[in-house]
Amino acid sequence: MDAAATLLDELIASGLLVPSGEDGLYGRGAIFETVVAGVESAAVRAGAGDAAQILRFPPVMPRSTFERSGYMKGFPQLAGTIHSFSGGDREHISLLDKLERGEDWCEHQAPTGCVMVPAACYPLYPALARAGHVAENGPIFDLQSYCFRHEPSKDPSRMQIFRMREFVRAGTAAQAREFRDSWVERAEEIAAKLELPFEVVPASDPFFGRAGRLMKSSQSEQGLKHELTIPVAGLGPTACASFNYHQDHFSEIWGLARDDGEPVHTACVGFGLERWALALFRHHGVDPDRWPAPVRSTLWDR
Amino acid sequence: MDAAATLLDELIASGLLVPSGEDGLYGRGAIFETVVAGVESAAVRAGAGDAAQILRFPPVMPRSTFERSGYMKGFPQLAGTIHSFSGGDREHISLLDKLERGEDWCEHQAPTGCVMVPAACYPLYPALARAGHVAENGPIFDLQSYCFRHEPSKDPSRMQIFRMREFVRAGTAAQAREFRDSWVERAEEIAAKLELPFEVVPASDPFFGRAGRLMKSSQSEQGLKHELTIPVAGLGPTACASFNYHQDHFSEIWGLARDDGEPVHTACVGFGLERWALALFRHHGVDPDRWPAPVRSTLWDR
Repeated sequence: MDAAATLLDELIASGLLVPSGEDGLYGRGAIFETVVAGVESAAVRAGAGDAAQILRFPPVMPRSTFERSGYMKGFPQLAGTIHSFSGGDREHISLLDKLERGEDWCEHQAPTGCVMVPAACYPLYPALARAGHVAENGPIFDLQSYCFRHEPSKDPSRMQIFRMREFVRAGTAAQAREFRDSWVERAEEIAAKLELPFEVVPASDPFFGRAGRLMKSSQSEQGLKHELTIPVAGLGPTACASFNYHQDHFSEIWGLARDDGEPVHTACVGFGLERWALALFRHHGVDPDRWPAPVRSTLWDR
Repeated sequence: MDAAATLLDELIASGLLVPSGEDGLYGRGAIFETVVAGVESAAVRAGAGDAAQILRFPPVMPRSTFERSGYMKGFPQLAGTIHSFSGGDREHISLLDKLERGEDWCEHQAPTGCVMVPAACYPLYPALARAGHVAENGPIFDLQSYCFRHEPSKDPSRMQIFRMREFVRAGTAAQAREFRDSWVERAEEIAAKLELPFEVVPASDPFFGRAGRLMKSSQSEQGLKHELTIPVAGLGPTACASFNYHQDHFSEIWGLARDDGEPVHTACVGFGLERWALALFRHHGVDPDRWPAPVRSTLWDR
């Protein structure tokens, strides 16, 4: 059995994860959630000096702003659109017949105005645009959201729906770069305190298809994305945090402008919360009571 | 302007809610989230004696278990199925063209194995079935999940995606009924401590279409559903908690059995967290610092 299957079995046997029958969808037990909360508080403590503004968006966003975001250009294979029944009584009867017979019953499911949030910061930029100008000091935002990526996998570190704690800066180019770089250091410090083996490496996003290859190499050449990776259970190490400098990509799309007329550049750091939890279980065992004292205090001391 | 629009404007102006451009989808500021957390801890304190097992499911569940749940029979209009791009490079180019021209681009979005969770307890029953027998003492579960209902509305208390804290008992008929009834009392006590005007009334679910009318009246006649309602901003009072005795409905579907061979009956209480928060803002004002001391201590004292 491969490493991913072994880890998954162990997590399920310990009640940390609850299988659902669908790859990449799991329930979690209380202890798993306590570890996730610990990872979040370690990240928040590392960002305490930033006086970030807390905003929370639900895991569903408007299709209108999603369409404008450009996500379908880069990652159509990962996106999830939400569809709903559009028929009347007659179509409903036919739907139930098909369901009964195990046939495809989605004929009258029509796209709604809702899509799945692909990354915690996607709903932020349209909200900033709606609010008008971005403040001159280059505000920082503290976000957390479930994110959906349609990539069913038997590797528990590749979930179809997972939580991302994300911090975003919207400021000058220098502020955005400085923010990104400082978070590389802060995340390295967290991983070290959690006694996890890690590496920070240049990275690129899984852009779709032939056109995607070009976007991928351009992103790599410009050094826009880095990841902190930890061996979890996949074939290679798993990206547990990513550090992204977007240049003025999102402010071009959303027409973001600063009070002083300077273009707005953005950068973000995202922590894949389930992945950090899985890394901790993988390296320190399934019982957090037995984890090294410094690891426990990094997660749970105030 | 009607009451819903007035409340919504006030909440947005205070930074409590962040508009998204789509009815029923909102971001939330830090204070809104603190109130939600307070409502949850009041509910958890009321249930402390139950020694409930904490389980957390993501807002997305397998289509296979959703299909079996019977939800499409009763509420096809509210359900959300998640669809994903199924084409290759050529279809991708055509998709982007359509997006560019503002046309419907969802032609190649195909149903995935994922659907939106409609109520926090829906993923629980298949998990219990998978685990085999239900313990004889009639276990109690503590759940919390985002839930999706496709019913766009300008009333902020009718969100398309919202959080539900739910407690479920899986035991004998007597245990399930007693659990449901005791939670009516506990929720009344919470509402009273929060100094909110409330009423507990017999209720029924919004079953779809012509066949739905029958299901609705049968549910009413048997007194299976009650709701605690509070005037928030809708035309009538808003259901902020619901108390449901399912008889053996879910255990019939999922083949749940107790160790002693007795049929499993279930009951649940669900707290609509955003609705409680909205009720508090509506009745005590947008600044929690100015709320009555007993209300504050019910929410935030340990």
